[in-house]
Amino acid sequence: MSYFCLKAKQLFKMSDDVLKYNIKLPEPTLRRLPWYLAYLKLLKDKGEESVSSTQISKEINVDASQIAKDLSFLNITGKTRVGYDVSSLVEVLEDFLGFTKTHRAFIFGAGSLGAALLHDNGLEQYGLRVVAAFDVNPKKIGTIINGIPVYNINDYNQKREELQVNIGILTVPVDKAQSVADQMIEGGIKAVWNFTPFRIKVPKHIVVQNTSIYAHLAVMFNRLTYNAIEKSEKK
Amino acid sequence: MSYFCLKAKQLFKMSDDVLKYNIKLPEPTLRRLPWYLAYLKLLKDKGEESVSSTQISKEINVDASQIAKDLSFLNITGKTRVGYDVSSLVEVLEDFLGFTKTHRAFIFGAGSLGAALLHDNGLEQYGLRVVAAFDVNPKKIGTIINGIPVYNINDYNQKREELQVNIGILTVPVDKAQSVADQMIEGGIKAVWNFTPFRIKVPKHIVVQNTSIYAHLAVMFNRLTYNAIEKSEKK
Repeated sequence: MSYFCLKAKQLFKMSDDVLKYNIKLPEPTLRRLPWYLAYLKLLKDKGEESVSSTQISKEINVDASQIAKDLSFLNITGKTRVGYDVSSLVEVLEDFLGFTKTHRAFIFGAGSLGAALLHDNGLEQYGLRVVAAFDVNPKKIGTIINGIPVYNINDYNQKREELQVNIGILTVPVDKAQSVADQMIEGGIKAVWNFTPFRIKVPKHIVVQNTSIYAHLAVMFNRLTYNAIEKSEKK
Repeated sequence: MSYFCLKAKQLFKMSDDVLKYNIKLPEPTLRRLPWYLAYLKLLKDKGEESVSSTQISKEINVDASQIAKDLSFLNITGKTRVGYDVSSLVEVLEDFLGFTKTHRAFIFGAGSLGAALLHDNGLEQYGLRVVAAFDVNPKKIGTIINGIPVYNINDYNQKREELQVNIGILTVPVDKAQSVADQMIEGGIKAVWNFTPFRIKVPKHIVVQNTSIYAHLAVMFNRLTYNAIEKSEKK
């Protein structure tokens, strides 16, 4: 047990070093790391102590060499013939991905998708705590959704200073996406998680993460139609 | 007006042809098309009648040549010095992307994220109607969330036949992701919209769309930390 604790501490230190070295990880790597984490957590729950990149590769459908390369960004190397230590790897990944810290966020637009996200307590497990929502609709202002208050958008600047929030989740209608993004950034938001299908423009130092779940729907519908046609042609 | 109707009908026919020609569009194109659609709808609301790819390019930050190429998959070509007809383009895009049809879906796992998606009425605007959810938790079974019933997972096969559903939304815990996906497919689901961070394995003819919003969080956290470090180093 003490070995693992020591090991984890060493690795935590390393992961801090990576941040200190100021490495901007490639986005594809950052997107794959949570897949590894999900699988490693399963292994950990099963009581597995070590895992090889080949073993991860079989489960995740990513080349073993790619996995080793991705994990090397975290300064983690497996041992020959033993592989990676599962517990340490889980801890380092969670830490490195920012899931162990609490990042406070505001939601802009308590409409359908905004309200949906307010209901997702799972976000907090991944380090995101939504502390308030903002809207312009008088019917929504003053309400509480899943324990989170909905304020008037006019109170945003004051609330941001009070609550020290850096992240804004954008779930307003498309025609308001740019103007609300501008307002968020002017008030001090440093990262915009954009759930609208609109491509917002932001200053260079602002982080934008686009998550258009409806675009994913389009891909799925197209593939479904394609498969149905292919199947009917084979008959 | 009649010109537009005629034009739209011609274009609808063309879009049917594309489906008949069995074109599997590249995923990057399919992901960009909804961005164009969102912008075009804004233009339409403003009463704009035509738009050039250069104009779209400026707003969306995609090369004009790429836009023209993407739209050519839909058999749509702009007119020299006039551009694309906005209304027709909106209609063809919505039709082509599958947003005008109603695709029925089941949600598997009425936990935090599942319940969140049950609250998102916006999905229906994009052609997805969630008609039921399934869970194993006795406290959830028999409840109704946002008008949508939650059934026992054991009733899935019967409900699928009754309701003729092809799409399953996977929002179960990671350790159940693969077994529930297997069950969905065995019961007749043709497309799995996977919101878990687990990489499920499916037979070749099954469509999988991975939407791991938590992986997007990881990317955002990393960029935010990187920007903060960069800024402090500049000081």
